Amino acid sequence: MLPFDVTVAAQKRIAPHIVRTPIFTNHLLNQWLGGHSIHFKCENFQKAGSFKARGAMNTLLACRDRGELPEKVVAFSLGNHSSGVAWACRTLGIPARIYLQQGVLPLKKQATENYGCEVIMTSSRQEAMQRVQEDVDKGYYFIHPYDHDDIIAGQSTCALEIYDELPNTTAIFAPIGGGGLASGTWLATQYLQKTAKVFGVEPVRANDAARSVREGHVIGYDSPPDTIADGVRTLALTERTFEYVQKLDGIFEIEEEDIYYWSQWVAHLVKITAEPACSMVLGGAFEWLKTQTTPQQVVVIISGGNVDADSHRKIWDKNRLDITPLQRWLEAK
Amino acid sequence: MLPFDVTVAAQKRIAPHIVRTPIFTNHLLNQWLGGHSIHFKCENFQKAGSFKARGAMNTLLACRDRGELPEKVVAFSLGNHSSGVAWACRTLGIPARIYLQQGVLPLKKQATENYGCEVIMTSSRQEAMQRVQEDVDKGYYFIHPYDHDDIIAGQSTCALEIYDELPNTTAIFAPIGGGGLASGTWLATQYLQKTAKVFGVEPVRANDAARSVREGHVIGYDSPPDTIADGVRTLALTERTFEYVQKLDGIFEIEEEDIYYWSQWVAHLVKITAEPACSMVLGGAFEWLKTQTTPQQVVVIISGGNVDADSHRKIWDKNRLDITPLQRWLEAK
Repeated sequence: MLPFDVTVAAQKRIAPHIVRTPIFTNHLLNQWLGGHSIHFKCENFQKAGSFKARGAMNTLLACRDRGELPEKVVAFSLGNHSSGVAWACRTLGIPARIYLQQGVLPLKKQATENYGCEVIMTSSRQEAMQRVQEDVDKGYYFIHPYDHDDIIAGQSTCALEIYDELPNTTAIFAPIGGGGLASGTWLATQYLQKTAKVFGVEPVRANDAARSVREGHVIGYDSPPDTIADGVRTLALTERTFEYVQKLDGIFEIEEEDIYYWSQWVAHLVKITAEPACSMVLGGAFEWLKTQTTPQQVVVIISGGNVDADSHRKIWDKNRLDITPLQRWLEAK
Repeated sequence: MLPFDVTVAAQKRIAPHIVRTPIFTNHLLNQWLGGHSIHFKCENFQKAGSFKARGAMNTLLACRDRGELPEKVVAFSLGNHSSGVAWACRTLGIPARIYLQQGVLPLKKQATENYGCEVIMTSSRQEAMQRVQEDVDKGYYFIHPYDHDDIIAGQSTCALEIYDELPNTTAIFAPIGGGGLASGTWLATQYLQKTAKVFGVEPVRANDAARSVREGHVIGYDSPPDTIADGVRTLALTERTFEYVQKLDGIFEIEEEDIYYWSQWVAHLVKITAEPACSMVLGGAFEWLKTQTTPQQVVVIISGGNVDADSHRKIWDKNRLDITPLQRWLEAK
């Protein structure tokens, strides 16, 4: 595991390039929840639309600090990591080649291309990995979406900003895909706010992290699981991220219909475009708060805002705003 | 017409209560538009979800400054004004009665009720006006949604914040419903940035302001016009707001399909929940910029973010993100 102070070093590196994203709250929601308060760290406003810009930029700048800035970069991704890498490479003037898997949101492909990198579609994760290996042999520098210390250190800067702005935070909730953000959040917490809890949130339909923790070893999928939360359709944790994810204070698993429910309510209450993979995180925070008897100040990481028209259409296919979180809150009591 | 310095007085009054809303921009959009830049003043993050909080709060505080803080307040509205009044009244501890017309978004009714005021549904604008008159006779203080100097002065503070943060602004675009926001924006501009232009934007289907200016007198509707942009389904300007609206540098009229188009693109590029009545304003700015040969720094006022599930469903019924604003931009050249 990484030493705790990597977060501060990463923040120093990337701060001139990334957005210090705002933290929003909603008075009505807090009023409904009684003594608790929920805050939203809005990484949907981050460069390239997600927290992935942090890890990508930190990885490249850490190379530069070692005098090894890559001449060319290769990556594969479900979408947000590719945009993050493409943005970071363009910012630093490095050519990038990105492998995207068939089935990635067309919008995320478009966003990646807009940053001026080379985009190649592959039919499977296996094919992407093989082609990446060939590129690495030809001198490309490979940036893994999460299985890399500099990526984890980069993602940890999001929590640093949270503790800096809201020093009374008692718990942070983050989505778990490959585990990079959750790992980084746990890491920053050990250094900056040891008493705070860190929770992960997954769709029930993509609950490989929760099952891995229960079983005590990494369990994965052969092909991307079917959920509206496309940002966390990752196949599996790696040993590196599993080590952190095991130390989380818990993982909440969200039913598909509830992902739709919280997607509508985040759009309505927080007035932002959040990916379903982030809106579901509010569901996890809500579940936890129901069990808490002392007032909690919770931060939900809205990790990205890249939502395509088809996902919007599915989310809004019927009205889910007629049952308020307050009604759900009272029912649970 | 009001003296120009009312804006500063209004800002001083309301600043402790309202949100100084952020101004966002999008690098990709600016890149597409060549030398121009577009900024979004995000009143969707304002108290009660729209700029209406400014006018309502200014009206009540102006009463208080005169030693005449009302004991009870009455208002009618399409939704956002009612929430603004309800919020301002709750903040100042004044009971409020709000008449909402049948057909108002259920969500806006819910929001108004959440602020703890009395909500009464009426079948028509005429009925609402009659019942308001009865209440005024009983001692209620009436806050009109736009036909009031303190409302216009309150709404003008939005432009004050824009010029303060972006002193190189060359044009502001605002939606026109009853004309309060457009009037206030024009007023603030005369005092703070006389060289800047102010444009109004309306749906083609609710273009009473544009037609009124063309005809030289106020033309209105008998019943709310049918458009997805529910926030500007106002029946007509009043003589008061018409006086300002006539002085605008132009009014853009947006086709219904284009309101859907820009709604998708604002959600996608700016990552915010914006009412269709505000997203369409980007369409107006886009039309104007196409005709400009020198670089412009434009601000689009995203006047509110209260969108119900049915409007979302209509907006996302099909993918409109496959044709980028860049493609439209190049086609026009």
